[in-house]
Amino acid sequence: MSRAKGVEANKIDTLAKSHMPALGIDLGGTKIRAAAVRDNQIITESQQIPTPDGRDNIIDGLVELVNKFRTDVLAGVGIATAGIVNGDTGEIIGSTGNLPGWSGTQLKTVMESRTLLPVHVENDANAAGYAEARVTGLRSKRCVVTVTLGTGIGGGIVLHGRLFRGSNWAAGEVGHIKIAMENKRLCTCGLFDCWEAYGSGRGLIQTAKDLLEGVSDEQTPLASRTTELTTHSIFAASADGDLMAQKIVERWHEHVSHGLVNLAHVLNPDCFVITGGLSEFIDFRLLEDMVIDHCLPTVGDSIEIRQSALGGQAGIIGAAQFVIDELLHLNK
Amino acid sequence: MSRAKGVEANKIDTLAKSHMPALGIDLGGTKIRAAAVRDNQIITESQQIPTPDGRDNIIDGLVELVNKFRTDVLAGVGIATAGIVNGDTGEIIGSTGNLPGWSGTQLKTVMESRTLLPVHVENDANAAGYAEARVTGLRSKRCVVTVTLGTGIGGGIVLHGRLFRGSNWAAGEVGHIKIAMENKRLCTCGLFDCWEAYGSGRGLIQTAKDLLEGVSDEQTPLASRTTELTTHSIFAASADGDLMAQKIVERWHEHVSHGLVNLAHVLNPDCFVITGGLSEFIDFRLLEDMVIDHCLPTVGDSIEIRQSALGGQAGIIGAAQFVIDELLHLNK
Repeated sequence: MSRAKGVEANKIDTLAKSHMPALGIDLGGTKIRAAAVRDNQIITESQQIPTPDGRDNIIDGLVELVNKFRTDVLAGVGIATAGIVNGDTGEIIGSTGNLPGWSGTQLKTVMESRTLLPVHVENDANAAGYAEARVTGLRSKRCVVTVTLGTGIGGGIVLHGRLFRGSNWAAGEVGHIKIAMENKRLCTCGLFDCWEAYGSGRGLIQTAKDLLEGVSDEQTPLASRTTELTTHSIFAASADGDLMAQKIVERWHEHVSHGLVNLAHVLNPDCFVITGGLSEFIDFRLLEDMVIDHCLPTVGDSIEIRQSALGGQAGIIGAAQFVIDELLHLNK
Repeated sequence: MSRAKGVEANKIDTLAKSHMPALGIDLGGTKIRAAAVRDNQIITESQQIPTPDGRDNIIDGLVELVNKFRTDVLAGVGIATAGIVNGDTGEIIGSTGNLPGWSGTQLKTVMESRTLLPVHVENDANAAGYAEARVTGLRSKRCVVTVTLGTGIGGGIVLHGRLFRGSNWAAGEVGHIKIAMENKRLCTCGLFDCWEAYGSGRGLIQTAKDLLEGVSDEQTPLASRTTELTTHSIFAASADGDLMAQKIVERWHEHVSHGLVNLAHVLNPDCFVITGGLSEFIDFRLLEDMVIDHCLPTVGDSIEIRQSALGGQAGIIGAAQFVIDELLHLNK
């Protein structure tokens, strides 16, 4: 084949692949979910399994999920996982409390040899950020910062449509910026005063315990249940008009705002997108006011905070979209 | 002229300009300095004048400085100034306490009409960061973050050799990330607990006052001089072995480290460069240890903190280099 014909064939091949779906997999601490994705949208029913214990069992689970989608023609498999990930080699290079023993896993290599498909592995918050920054209205922006508020806090920084990964794949580890300085609250990472220790679900529960100390049952029914507090019980009490619960939720908004204020002064993004399980409990008007109040005027003027457009699907979509975009060389 | 000849002539014109020096001007609160720059180096004696009072007088002073270099053929003039600057229009869009009434100045337009030369206006910390990231060994890096420690704290973020400016020209306003959350210390910006309120020269003096409260003359001679403390008197006492002064300087290092820790988790840079008047008093070994101690392992592993390679010339060099690079379309 002549060079010109070869280039032409490559173009056709690439074009074909760009119309093929990729499988997106979101690997979390409690469950693994998968669905086929095309054009930044899920196009099949999703499948899920509980996250097995241990590295080998997790990999078996991932392969099992891929096999459920074998009836579709797939461009490849994208896996969003907790932990810091080398995006070139697909190795998990930073550990996470939610998946013990996961660090060191050569996930891309193992999965490619087991499935014979191109595999891309990405940090889950990065994958979510990549998907969120591709929705209508955000694609052309200079800087979109997606913050995942869940059990922990993650971040995904997308600059001019490309994920920013930093020098050692750890950019966007925003849960571990420090918002206090006196070793007041221990984070699960072993360091003190991380944003995650205040703004995550665990942080909210700790804030509730702190504020409920010395408070009587008569002031709030939450006072007698401090050992069994959940984020949902706090938000439910707040919605029911419990003044103490409302105070706790407001303090949590303040904590969330502190991290966003810091990110705003570093990156001055066009837009923050808030996703993750706790994002549905955010009062966006209140949060935006709190952030603007603590920003320099020029920084505050351009603050926009949006709720996720993709909800819990962002990780699946972003992971799959990475595979498609890598085939098209869009993310280089 | 045919189109092909026109393109050729443009190339020759661009090539000629790339070998011409540009004038770099650093406009500070107390003095204005200028020198001609080529290939990221100062190539003439620098000239300086005291910063005049008021917008019109400052502009007259800038024009006067440009005229002192009229004997050189100049590609253009780059001006590094305090404040947030619209890099396209050259308007000062964010004010600064050091140059009252400066916000709103259409500096590029005014200076181009007064000098008939291409003018680029840039935030001073951005200009310094741009120059520092161009020195040998850093040019090819993904992310270089330059932090200017002086009366205030500024930042310049260079990604793949290009300055990152954010959505509203305010990226890198790192002096105003919050490192505490209880309205403990007022910053000159009017907000509380900014990094600048702790890590800048003013912050160091405030830390000294706080730590010297209730301390007797016998413990340290600084105790009787709290109303006339300067950064230099504190560093001098520390160098002389004054234990209290050493404690103050160590606390200041901690404060500086807090901001770097936050930046490290957001940007995961290849390298931090510390510049500004206070950078010469930094114990880089101590600072690096403090930063690594408060970082996730994957983030801490790649921490490198360097002293400025260009010293007080970085602003002049960066501002001038912008003009040259814009002519060569290197910074688009």
